[in-house]
Amino acid sequence: MTAAYYAGPRKITLGAGTIVPPATGEVRLKVVYAGICGTDLHIFHGAMDHRIKAPQVIGHEMSGTVAEIGPGVEHLSVGDSVVVRPLDHRAATPADRGHDHICRGLKFLGIDSPGAFQSSWTVPAFTVHRLPDGVDLRTAALTEPLAVACHDVRLGAVAPGELAVVIGGGPIGMLVAMVARHAGARVLIAEINPFRLALARRLGFEAFDPTQTDLPALVRARSNESGADVVFEVSGSKHAVLGLPDLLAIRGRVVLVAIHARPVEVNLFQFFWKELRLIGTRVYEPEDYESAIQLIASGELPLADLITEVHPLEKIAELFPRLEADPSAMKVLLSCQDGTP
Amino acid sequence: MTAAYYAGPRKITLGAGTIVPPATGEVRLKVVYAGICGTDLHIFHGAMDHRIKAPQVIGHEMSGTVAEIGPGVEHLSVGDSVVVRPLDHRAATPADRGHDHICRGLKFLGIDSPGAFQSSWTVPAFTVHRLPDGVDLRTAALTEPLAVACHDVRLGAVAPGELAVVIGGGPIGMLVAMVARHAGARVLIAEINPFRLALARRLGFEAFDPTQTDLPALVRARSNESGADVVFEVSGSKHAVLGLPDLLAIRGRVVLVAIHARPVEVNLFQFFWKELRLIGTRVYEPEDYESAIQLIASGELPLADLITEVHPLEKIAELFPRLEADPSAMKVLLSCQDGTP
Repeated sequence: MTAAYYAGPRKITLGAGTIVPPATGEVRLKVVYAGICGTDLHIFHGAMDHRIKAPQVIGHEMSGTVAEIGPGVEHLSVGDSVVVRPLDHRAATPADRGHDHICRGLKFLGIDSPGAFQSSWTVPAFTVHRLPDGVDLRTAALTEPLAVACHDVRLGAVAPGELAVVIGGGPIGMLVAMVARHAGARVLIAEINPFRLALARRLGFEAFDPTQTDLPALVRARSNESGADVVFEVSGSKHAVLGLPDLLAIRGRVVLVAIHARPVEVNLFQFFWKELRLIGTRVYEPEDYESAIQLIASGELPLADLITEVHPLEKIAELFPRLEADPSAMKVLLSCQDGTP
Repeated sequence: MTAAYYAGPRKITLGAGTIVPPATGEVRLKVVYAGICGTDLHIFHGAMDHRIKAPQVIGHEMSGTVAEIGPGVEHLSVGDSVVVRPLDHRAATPADRGHDHICRGLKFLGIDSPGAFQSSWTVPAFTVHRLPDGVDLRTAALTEPLAVACHDVRLGAVAPGELAVVIGGGPIGMLVAMVARHAGARVLIAEINPFRLALARRLGFEAFDPTQTDLPALVRARSNESGADVVFEVSGSKHAVLGLPDLLAIRGRVVLVAIHARPVEVNLFQFFWKELRLIGTRVYEPEDYESAIQLIASGELPLADLITEVHPLEKIAELFPRLEADPSAMKVLLSCQDGTP
């Protein structure tokens, strides 16, 4: 079998992986498709070396089938099409208040333990969601990022008829926009990258470059002067954060999706003045995975349009350096099957 | 009749006021007690000259009785004990989405129009709430700031058994602490002023100086290591804002009460990581006034302990300069009755 290892900053190596027989409560999966996430590129840069034990197989977005079942696993059968929710919350304590998905002791599969960039992956069975019959495994490889979007839209309490603005039109922003639109919102996307702007428009969204368009004025024009009901901050831009209140209606909500590594200035006066709300969101809960799977199975979202490239796993070492600098890439999949049983 | 005028930066003058006969939809009140608010001191400093038309009577916290009723006013009778909710929302538009209390065209009585520091005050009848029989007008003069606290605790969704931290033990912080405790929360107060710390303790709160005590450690110790459910930011301190996430449990809420005039740094990474929420709050809605009046009538809050001084209105010009610098003053009332009918 084949496995791709993060071997240190800017180093990905291919190697012979190890087929790990599933222990009690585990299953071994054939990985069919694995998606490359911004976090994987972040790891590649060396930014997460404090969590990675190089050489380590990374990757956490995938779809596949069940190859082997360990003792005590009831809800899965060999051959099932599945996806993995890569959160191991077994270290949760009562101090985490039942919020297992972001518990303090959370281990993220593909970061804190081996990941999906290999043809065979052995994982705890409780991380595995079965896909309905007939679901295409290519689009199913988007379940993980789509579940992020489902979580964000759910916590943002997006309601039919609302005006939502998505700042940042990368894969997560685009998925948030799709899910918010599916929830009945009108959606505007703000993005500076022309490739992404064009894609957003092809997907049927009103999309604008905020450096070229007066975004607050546009939002007012689209909302009878009231402002947006909800803004999804997916850009990670300090400048975007400072401008959030200008986009929002009285009592509007900001859903914070992006990771801002350092403290950034927030116009708290406007949060007070307009009684705005900021809602932090991170990863997903099991129900978000189920929502994402339903959406994929329904075929109602143009998910295939986000998959800009599919390459064999063997190409990964040349892909990563290019993806760092390629503004036209959206979601890139690795085809991981190599005949491993 | 007597009236106190803001006459320009650091200048308060006493003068003969004008008895204004109530027009249609208005009532004329005898002001019995008026409270001095931090905003009044702010005006005194000259910080709000863009909104004040000096010389102007200021003041917006009060209790009194109905002296005269204009045409078309049904719900009030001469002699009723009343308080004023000093918000004139008649300029609200559909773009304000029904949030009249913070509508864009909001006029604040005592800032944007004449206020309560006079023995006779004519106001729109819709701003007037009747007090139940027998309510003491001294404590009733705290209705306005208490309604702020009721609004903050309501929007913060404080639930019985929760741990609440109030940062800032001035009048509003102390009232928030009382209302949160009344709602069933355990309450810690963080305050650096020793007079206020001592008062908080006399009122039965655990209160700490965060420059002397490791507040995050204390909060963990009081919450089985989980952190606070809700933190009320009433201090206006940049330093306090940056430290908010350290006090909060996973999915904890920040209720933003203080006015931060300039953008301040917020640790958005922690808002993401712990899925924290920030809830902006401003003034009050009619139901908060009713809650405040009920609480005052019930006698269940130690409100009288917050009234540190009562002076005749005539003393106002000497009071303001002292209050600026007096850390022991909490709520100071002006006794405004001078025999004006």
